[in-house]
Parts: sequence; C-alpha cells; structure tokens
Amino acid sequence: MNFPEKVSLNGEILNTQEAKISVFDRGFLFGDGIYEVMIQVNGKLFHAQEHMSRLQYSLKEIELNYDISNLKKEINNLLVVSELTTQDCLIYIQITRGVAPRKHAFPKDSVPTCLIYALPKEFPKINNSSYNVVTQNDFRWAKCHIKMTSLLGNVLANQFATENDAYETLLIRAGVFTEASHCNVFFVKDEIVYTHPANEFILNGITRQLVVKLCNDLNIELREEGYPVNLIKEIDEAFLTGTTTQVGVIVKINNRVLPNGESAGPITKRLQQAFSELL
Amino acid sequence: MNFPEKVSLNGEILNTQEAKISVFDRGFLFGDGIYEVMIQVNGKLFHAQEHMSRLQYSLKEIELNYDISNLKKEINNLLVVSELTTQDCLIYIQITRGVAPRKHAFPKDSVPTCLIYALPKEFPKINNSSYNVVTQNDFRWAKCHIKMTSLLGNVLANQFATENDAYETLLIRAGVFTEASHCNVFFVKDEIVYTHPANEFILNGITRQLVVKLCNDLNIELREEGYPVNLIKEIDEAFLTGTTTQVGVIVKINNRVLPNGESAGPITKRLQQAFSELL
Repeated sequence: MNFPEKVSLNGEILNTQEAKISVFDRGFLFGDGIYEVMIQVNGKLFHAQEHMSRLQYSLKEIELNYDISNLKKEINNLLVVSELTTQDCLIYIQITRGVAPRKHAFPKDSVPTCLIYALPKEFPKINNSSYNVVTQNDFRWAKCHIKMTSLLGNVLANQFATENDAYETLLIRAGVFTEASHCNVFFVKDEIVYTHPANEFILNGITRQLVVKLCNDLNIELREEGYPVNLIKEIDEAFLTGTTTQVGVIVKINNRVLPNGESAGPITKRLQQAFSELL
Repeated sequence: MNFPEKVSLNGEILNTQEAKISVFDRGFLFGDGIYEVMIQVNGKLFHAQEHMSRLQYSLKEIELNYDISNLKKEINNLLVVSELTTQDCLIYIQITRGVAPRKHAFPKDSVPTCLIYALPKEFPKINNSSYNVVTQNDFRWAKCHIKMTSLLGNVLANQFATENDAYETLLIRAGVFTEASHCNVFFVKDEIVYTHPANEFILNGITRQLVVKLCNDLNIELREEGYPVNLIKEIDEAFLTGTTTQVGVIVKINNRVLPNGESAGPITKRLQQAFSELL
C-alpha cells in the first residue's frame, strides 16, 4: 500500500506531505466523521450515485450538515491532477465535523473537514483470489449501518484476521453472522443464499445490494437472514462482497476448508460472472 | 471552551494553530488511538500514577506499542510554557497509531503520534452544580473499558443530553444502567449505593475507583451491580463521577425530580465531602 501523491483537502489540491489537519479536528479527537470508498472502472465511477446517497445518509445519521454538491467536481479535479481520469482507481472520501475545542457535544459553528484521495487499483473482471476467514464475536456498536470513522472495532477485528493468516474476520452477534470487518458476507446452504438483513448491525454495502439484486435476476433463492453460527459446518459456499473485494470466494472458515476447495462453488461462480458483467 | 495556546506534539511544543497532523494519521482515518484526561489541583497532578497506569492499559488493549516514560517530562515542559505549573488545570493526552497508508490492520512500522495539551480549569473543593440527566439505550461497543478515541457513540449520547437540556445521558444495556457518555454513575436506594461493575461495559474511572474506596472507608454499603432501569422510580439519590465532574449531584432523571430536589442527598453529601478532602 502506498500514499497517493496528491489529496484534496477542503477543495484544495495538496501534495500528500503537506495535507495536514489541526490536532483539534474532531475526526482526530473523537472519530467524529463518516467516509465512503468508491471505485472507477473502465473510466466510469461505479454506482457513484449510490455511494453519494449513502454518504448523505451517513451525514444525516450523525447530524452533520455538509453540502455534498461540490464533491463530484472535487473528485474530478483530483483525478485530473493525479492523472487517473481514465485509469482504474479507488476514491476515498471522508468528512468530519471539523475543528473545535474538545467537548463531546457538537460544536455550534465548526466548518466540516473534507478529505478526498485516489489511488490507482486494478480491478480484474472477476476477483480470482480465494480467502481464508476467521470468526470472532461482534463487539462493535449497534449503529453499524453508519459508515463512520470511529473504526477501532473494525480495525481490531481486521487485525485479528491478519494475525491468523486470514483476509477477514466474520463477526457473530446473537448467534448469527453479521458481516466482516470491511466486507459483507454471504453463505450458501442447499442452494439457498443467506446474508444478514440490512439493519443496524451491518453496513449495507453497495456490492451487497447489487448481489441481492443479481440473486433475484438469476432466480437464486436469497434469504436476508443472519446465518446461524451453529450451522457453520453445513455451509456449502461462502463469499465476501465489498467495493474493492467485489465478490470474493471464501475457501476456509477457521480450520474448515469449504467443500469446493480452492475454487468458487457453482452459485458463487454464477454471481461472480453476473457481477463482472456490471463493471 | 477555548483552545489552549500551546500543545505538545510528539514532544515538540507548538502554537496550537501550527499543531497539525497528517490526514493519514490513523487517529484521523480510523479513530485508532487512546487518550487520558487528568487534572492538576493545588499544584499537584491528581492521582497521576493511576492515570498513567490506565493509559498503559489502554495501549496494551489495542496493542499499541508506545514508551510512556517521557510523558511526565513532556507534560511538565508543556505546563511550563503554558504558565500552568502552579495553576489548577486539566491535561489531555492522546496517542494514536501514527501515519500509514489506509488499511484496517495495523501497519508494521508506523510511529505513534502523541498529543498533549493543558487548559486552566478551576476545581471547587466541592462541585456544587446540580445536573439533569436523560436516558438512552447504550448502543456503544462492548469494549468500553478501553479509553479510546473512536468516540462517536459517546459523542452522539452526549449530544442527546445537550438537545434535551441535560448535562449527561445515562446509558442502559441489558436492563441496567452502565455509565454516562463521559462520566460514571452511582445510585442510592435505601441507603445502599449501586454502581455498574468495572467490566467491558464501562470505563473504570479513577474518580469512580476513589468513590468506591470512600464508601468502604465511610461504612456506606456499596454494591457493584448494574442498577435496574425498572427500579428507576425508587432512586433516592444519584450522582456522576468523573475527572473534571468530580462527584456531581444528579437532581433530575428524565422528567423525574429526585427526592432531594436541588440539593445533594445525605449519602452524596458525605461522599462529596470526603472526596474534597482528597484534593
């Protein structure tokens, strides 16, 4: 992983080394901000409107007033100076409640801080990686539907995966799998696809939403239900979804290799194929 | 609330306007840091050792390697340039995992960021404020024993208080009161004092620990049990504890004025008096 050369900070293009914020930014003191990650593939922002709507939703959920109408122009300016206008890349956007003396409750008149950066990243038509995952109790808060920057819970869950030679940690709350540290998760059992309902316990990923639609289009039975941990041994297939992970095959959960070994199972394969046609 | 004039950033004394961190600091991107607040009263850091031990504990809980041995010297340097060596003040310390390209799992070789600032603040021998509080479900994560900077949950809970003309929000988990957004909470019923046990659902405040000891010293019966919400109408007295709040009387919970009206009840009064003798 590298730093980008340039970032956009409050609409201004800066060299990354010069892109600095006050130590009194509430993003730094309180994790009081939200973010969004989207990708550009084949010269087009992939489902940009959905990402912008979700950004707006997160802002609303934390009562942060920010006019997002300039974001598209700012992203474009950044892609131009980064020489990424035609390249596949990921775009990161973060908005915090800005600079104010430290006090938990919202300051009256702070000006939000907006950071945008872009990094070149190749997106294969189909993600052929195969992922090991581990499991852990979901100790995060009960407002996971907000894409916020108070991410220490997700950081610790992801670190747990790294320390266990895995890509992701599947999180368990009230006996069912919710999601992973930065991906959603789907399971297949007896040709039925399961994923946790989009409530306050998961971040409703744009890729998750697309895969839910694809199941419908392909006449694959989908249940938006939390898959029970006690049926972990009966999982036929499993996959992760995420903006940069796309549809990624899980091949091992803890110590159990899934029935299709290193390959995607038949339903995962169909969904990967159908998803690649959206790019 | 004001900004301090000077801060200490990684051991360097800076004017606050010049104290800036990279937008890639993990404190900004992930809320990946911990903090501590302590006070100086009568020219002495109040229970500094306990605060330092807790800082070390929080660091360990998030697996952040940071040598705290220079902190005392850095605090002292800051107090000197801030002309606060003999004044009552609060001292804020924050340590984050430092600057790295954005990736959830810990970076291998980032250098932690350390921010310290001090602000003059008067501490009366006894806090004579009387506080209104409201109640809300505790939607925070299940590792509240870590004093971390991913504080959006606490921010939203505190904002809820502010919007309801209250000082604090008492949080409810599994039918009992845990703590408040930046204070611990104690209840008195039939001359018995109740406070939530120091487990993963509360931050074990230094003032909380002192009050627990004082109850013992004063032969006041104390039970470290979560006070049940369904007995809310039977509360005789209630008070908040915190490093800057000290022992603060609660006079109203939601719409119910507590039996002692605007005054501290008898047990709260004894504890306030005994606490003031520690200062």
